[in-house]
Amino acid sequence: MRAVVLGEGGQLAVREVSLEDAGPGEALVRVLVAGICSTDLELRRGYMGFQGVPGHEFVGRVERAPAGHETLLGKRVVGEINAACGQCETCARGLPRHCPRRTVLGILGRSGAMAELLWLPAGNLREVPDVLATDRALFTEPVAAAYEVLEQVAVRGKRVLVMGAGKLGGLVAQVLALAGASVTVVGRHERLLVPLAEAGISVTASVESLPPRSFPMIVEATGQPEGFERALGLVEPRGTIVLKSTCASARPLNLAPVVIDEVTVIGSRCGPFEPSLAALAAGRLSPESTIDARFELDDASSAFDEASRPGIRKVVLDISS
Amino acid sequence: MRAVVLGEGGQLAVREVSLEDAGPGEALVRVLVAGICSTDLELRRGYMGFQGVPGHEFVGRVERAPAGHETLLGKRVVGEINAACGQCETCARGLPRHCPRRTVLGILGRSGAMAELLWLPAGNLREVPDVLATDRALFTEPVAAAYEVLEQVAVRGKRVLVMGAGKLGGLVAQVLALAGASVTVVGRHERLLVPLAEAGISVTASVESLPPRSFPMIVEATGQPEGFERALGLVEPRGTIVLKSTCASARPLNLAPVVIDEVTVIGSRCGPFEPSLAALAAGRLSPESTIDARFELDDASSAFDEASRPGIRKVVLDISS
Repeated sequence: MRAVVLGEGGQLAVREVSLEDAGPGEALVRVLVAGICSTDLELRRGYMGFQGVPGHEFVGRVERAPAGHETLLGKRVVGEINAACGQCETCARGLPRHCPRRTVLGILGRSGAMAELLWLPAGNLREVPDVLATDRALFTEPVAAAYEVLEQVAVRGKRVLVMGAGKLGGLVAQVLALAGASVTVVGRHERLLVPLAEAGISVTASVESLPPRSFPMIVEATGQPEGFERALGLVEPRGTIVLKSTCASARPLNLAPVVIDEVTVIGSRCGPFEPSLAALAAGRLSPESTIDARFELDDASSAFDEASRPGIRKVVLDISS
Repeated sequence: MRAVVLGEGGQLAVREVSLEDAGPGEALVRVLVAGICSTDLELRRGYMGFQGVPGHEFVGRVERAPAGHETLLGKRVVGEINAACGQCETCARGLPRHCPRRTVLGILGRSGAMAELLWLPAGNLREVPDVLATDRALFTEPVAAAYEVLEQVAVRGKRVLVMGAGKLGGLVAQVLALAGASVTVVGRHERLLVPLAEAGISVTASVESLPPRSFPMIVEATGQPEGFERALGLVEPRGTIVLKSTCASARPLNLAPVVIDEVTVIGSRCGPFEPSLAALAAGRLSPESTIDARFELDDASSAFDEASRPGIRKVVLDISS
């Protein structure tokens, strides 16, 4: 099958690769579309030291299903990207997304979705309701990551600053607004702020215009290593910073302000698929409007270049139809 | 009066300085004893850019009291080190220790306790009960900083690793154990661990022997900039790290593990004096046993050198009697 392959030094190639064997309980999925996420761009810069087939945002159709999961055959699906062992203490605690033995689709020890076919445990797959178009369903995973914030912090009635109006920041802002937070988004690109403003969210392009130490809660989704320090300057004493950005690079950092201002910092990664699918199916979110470009699988290199341009939101690979 | 003066480049001198004028509502306190804290050592390395009279742990006797506070005259007192404006929004929120216009005794914009006399707002002073000896009362401020953790995280029945068996780490371990946590302390110096072990706290000198990613809660009180990264390796997914260390130096840091493991990091600084005084007066804590050396005020430079030696706990300056 054809697949995007990330090699040493961030080299991207599209080439023929052989399909791996099925792992236990895995289903084979023909990928319809795959999205390029900021994490994929960071993988290319060396984050996680990943080499292989990247891609973890996808919609596909089930071609082979393991015993007991035959009803999935032929269905359109999205997939929870963390494949847990199901047997360790962390799994027993109900935290499969944190299983220390997990593999993660296109990120850690598992070939990803930028390929014609992928394997995932059948239990990771969620059927896409007929009412939900493929392009919208493609956002199930990043919208779930936005819903994760709601699992961690009570936001109703809270004044929240979302830093970053990009792929994830825009979704977080909308999900928090839906949950009753009073959201302000700060981002550098006017064209990303306009649709958020039209959705009734307060926006600004000038981080300097924001009063220092004034927000009880901040979601840092800039994708930039310096975002955290900016957030520290904007959060009020005893406030909360939810960290969404993962970057490949370290940066000199003094954590004294965290101590002095008694700030709470909460790391936030993948989230629950159920509320995400429900919100997308009900039309409470229509993130397909943020698809800025589409490419064929063979043009993946151009797709990554486009996705790396400042101010570009979702770039989609059309893989099968 | 004689005072320790911290000058440019961390130069320490003991010299004659003139007593400043009283600020509004301030009482004049003759200092009996002052303690040297890790923060004082960090001030000398440039932390907070502080120059002037350091010192924020003290017991003194009130020599002059402002109108309405005459009952304090002649009383032995300790003092809350944050002097708030009492008028801003943060003060109105009930967070005077976070007042953005605050001064902090011997740390920020206010001459400290390593002097014969100090000024503090009378409202900051707490009378020391007769039953409480001066040497024990000297620990009111650092014990309060340990109690702050209890205000931030529920610890009863929780497995907690305290990193650092030094001045603050030892107190935190004891306060958490009193509150019903199951505490392990890891520290580098055998002689600091022995008394904690004798107090029934589980101890180890080998951070390498601790199972990685296994503690639901960690209090980082090593005073070392690398302590936080060590804590990140030991905390379990979705666990909590309470940060106590403030250091002068920055250090290259990648926060991706905070995001990936969805760790909560809580900065923790000064704490409430009331439970601290109550615990000390009731003899539930007897931290005066950690006084490793005492010096006269004029020997402050030697006192700082002694306090900087690895494995030394509290060093006391005897100032008046």
